[in-house]
Amino acid sequence: MTEPAPWKLVEREELQDCAVFKVARLHARSPRSGAVHPFYGITAEDWVNVVAVTPQDEVVMVRQWRHGSQSVTLEIPGGIIDPGETPAAAAARELREETGYGGGTLEPLGSANPNPALFANRVYTFVARGVIPQGAIANESTEETAAVLVPRAELAAKLEREEIDHALVMAALLRFFLAERP
Amino acid sequence: MTEPAPWKLVEREELQDCAVFKVARLHARSPRSGAVHPFYGITAEDWVNVVAVTPQDEVVMVRQWRHGSQSVTLEIPGGIIDPGETPAAAAARELREETGYGGGTLEPLGSANPNPALFANRVYTFVARGVIPQGAIANESTEETAAVLVPRAELAAKLEREEIDHALVMAALLRFFLAERP
Repeated sequence: MTEPAPWKLVEREELQDCAVFKVARLHARSPRSGAVHPFYGITAEDWVNVVAVTPQDEVVMVRQWRHGSQSVTLEIPGGIIDPGETPAAAAARELREETGYGGGTLEPLGSANPNPALFANRVYTFVARGVIPQGAIANESTEETAAVLVPRAELAAKLEREEIDHALVMAALLRFFLAERP
Repeated sequence: MTEPAPWKLVEREELQDCAVFKVARLHARSPRSGAVHPFYGITAEDWVNVVAVTPQDEVVMVRQWRHGSQSVTLEIPGGIIDPGETPAAAAARELREETGYGGGTLEPLGSANPNPALFANRVYTFVARGVIPQGAIANESTEETAAVLVPRAELAAKLEREEIDHALVMAALLRFFLAERP
């Protein structure tokens, strides 16, 4: 195969600031034709999510209203990494805020790009083992989460029934299953 | 737990048309406080991707320049479903265009939301088994893809090394691994 060559970014035109992300028009030159074409890019802070497992082998999940899908979703805890915060600290914080769980151990499982066609940021995934209730849910700002304990053995069925259908959660669960395989 | 209540969408303010997606400000009323807060939503056509496996148990993957990440990625074939096109037809078309492979059988593996915090659309995933070369790669518009055959047994290592790090591809591979498990 011929390895694809990089396109040259000729101009970046900022279009819209949407608080949690920004949209830009990217004028890029084709290495093949030399012509300049417009593309669209979304920039955002890095994100984090965490597969948190209790001593009873339950995964601590979150139900919440999501404004993009206009629906209540079943997800693992996660969110935006604050400025100056490490991915690990953000994982522990989001777990605590959104579910009330914490403690135990925290290990990185790697990272991903949410969709490299559009996004430049990373989502870091962690596994927390041996988490226990630490106190009440402490949502920030407009967040309203409810915690749900899902036995690990039920994850596959929930994925197959599309009760879990958030692609970034699915990418995290793939890393979790790979890390846990015999 | 208390099930989260839906927020009421009070006003949808279109902000920006970015060709392959549109951005809107969503003014929504909290069911808890009654206050209206702004959120941001991205609308796009539905997407498709396909895990295509050769008779030699290789997965047909694609290398291409991605303008969001400003990098060359390793992905499974996929793209935007055309108006009036079924997800299955789009999967077969993208496989053929981006890799030159086709034939064999095509089965749905389910769908996901790319990120329900922001997106309203779905990405449909298919598995194609027994695919063989049908002809040359036939990229549309500005696409420049190269096909790569990855032995199925090497997928886990490529995920662990983050050579495969596109979250929508990872979500598709999770569905593929679940469908293929003994």
